[in-house]
Amino acid sequence: MSILVVGTVAFDSLETPFGKADAVLGGSATYFSTSASFFTDVNLVAVVGEDFPEESVEFLKSRNISIEGLERMPGKTFHWKGKYGYDLNEAQTLETHLNVLADFRPQLPAGYAESEYLFLANIDPDLQLEVMSQAKNARLVACDTMNFWISSKPDSLTKVLQRVDIAIINEGEARQYTQEANLVKAAKKILAHGVNTLIIKRGEYGVLMFNGSSVFAAPAYPLEQVFDPTGAGDTFAGGFMGYLANTGDTSDAGIRQAIIFGSVMASFNVEDFSLERMKKLTYPEVEERFRHFKSLTHFEGLPVL
Amino acid sequence: MSILVVGTVAFDSLETPFGKADAVLGGSATYFSTSASFFTDVNLVAVVGEDFPEESVEFLKSRNISIEGLERMPGKTFHWKGKYGYDLNEAQTLETHLNVLADFRPQLPAGYAESEYLFLANIDPDLQLEVMSQAKNARLVACDTMNFWISSKPDSLTKVLQRVDIAIINEGEARQYTQEANLVKAAKKILAHGVNTLIIKRGEYGVLMFNGSSVFAAPAYPLEQVFDPTGAGDTFAGGFMGYLANTGDTSDAGIRQAIIFGSVMASFNVEDFSLERMKKLTYPEVEERFRHFKSLTHFEGLPVL
Repeated sequence: MSILVVGTVAFDSLETPFGKADAVLGGSATYFSTSASFFTDVNLVAVVGEDFPEESVEFLKSRNISIEGLERMPGKTFHWKGKYGYDLNEAQTLETHLNVLADFRPQLPAGYAESEYLFLANIDPDLQLEVMSQAKNARLVACDTMNFWISSKPDSLTKVLQRVDIAIINEGEARQYTQEANLVKAAKKILAHGVNTLIIKRGEYGVLMFNGSSVFAAPAYPLEQVFDPTGAGDTFAGGFMGYLANTGDTSDAGIRQAIIFGSVMASFNVEDFSLERMKKLTYPEVEERFRHFKSLTHFEGLPVL
Repeated sequence: MSILVVGTVAFDSLETPFGKADAVLGGSATYFSTSASFFTDVNLVAVVGEDFPEESVEFLKSRNISIEGLERMPGKTFHWKGKYGYDLNEAQTLETHLNVLADFRPQLPAGYAESEYLFLANIDPDLQLEVMSQAKNARLVACDTMNFWISSKPDSLTKVLQRVDIAIINEGEARQYTQEANLVKAAKKILAHGVNTLIIKRGEYGVLMFNGSSVFAAPAYPLEQVFDPTGAGDTFAGGFMGYLANTGDTSDAGIRQAIIFGSVMASFNVEDFSLERMKKLTYPEVEERFRHFKSLTHFEGLPVL
């Protein structure tokens, strides 16, 4: 089954201790779509300006991502400028130019309305609600968000959480939204809104998943070269949702495997700037790293002493 | 086989967001010994002052910990005062009263010299070297350290690392000692000293183990109540070394299981102040939580898409 994603397509300018990149391809929907495209077809809904290069459109097309929903508006493409220190865990935003994103009102093309898998990347929760009401056939909906919406639109965000099946947020956001320092308690509060599966992203420490009474902890892949963490969360979500859409297996076991695929994709993405690593990535490499995750986490059962 | 541990027996006074404890039993060797005692006999080497209560001595004895090496010196017992904020990841030291610890020169009782398993808890690396030269039959030696020794005695610490089989340190210390932000690179530098197995503790995020070409990531157990993280690292080391001494299995598989036992023991210890939780803990509870760790980390192998 195809996946529908609504989010941003952007230019990123960033500095890490390992180099600089100026106005390179970025955005939550871009990272998500590219990652998910290794597993299934993707229908993209986003907005770009007149300055968005044909080359990037061609790249998306080359990944079998439908760009029928990629709206082009007069003006400039959303541009984010950020900086990372040595720990690479948190980006410092230097400049945010919303540009055409300021007036974005997602409109699903007729063909997209059939999508059964929907990912609401980090955008205004009111727009996330609007997209959900348009995507009438979505049977599995996941969302992301960010600190900005938690503080500015907590009620809208709560409405989103009441309607999605899966929430994928980072641990600082989980604590901020619930006002709970303890992550297990924070998770319970979020699940209480009706979310079936909560995935808490912890950067270089991996993810924690809460799904009914099931709890799953997956590490991040320990890498010797982490170049640029931009887009890691969306790349994770793309691998995760892409795998679910490919198999339709939303059992606890299926969700755990999907989390590993998400972690695999994210681990590749951070190895280079922008989507450079994803452009070269092959599916056999994905499979090889999945096997590495297995050996990274495996231990024998309880011994008798 | 029995384990020999050299470290501190102390009084801790601490504040967490959940309460206060004044002059309660603590110290690296205390936590280590108590945890290891669930798996094997322990020979304890440490120093206390005249104020150390008989009740605590009786507790150690009740856990089959040999206190022949627990030296009693004129003066007061080592006393640490600290404080934790809501994140519970890092203690803020308020006061350190070394007292009798200032003049501690470990002397192994004759019977202890036969121990084949040795844990050098966090003490002056020069004392760690001295203990290694006394423990002539130790065939598996592990050490801990802290930021204070990394900055004040880096050369002595390097000599320790050149002689131990296993180093168990936290991630901030690994970065500080190697001057490497990337943890995989930091691990390689430490292993280059001749350490066979490096375990990097990451607090609530679990541990990473590097052992030749094998890398293992174990999560910490997600707990709804974390009361007091004091001693978690030493309790981890106690379960880890205790299991190895019990089984003698130092293969990669054995070390991975030992890490899970260490993680299990640490997860119980943080549930209450001081050693209160350990005093009530039973081995069936340990086994049950080991099984929970298995379900916490398990996922199916690579699917064919």
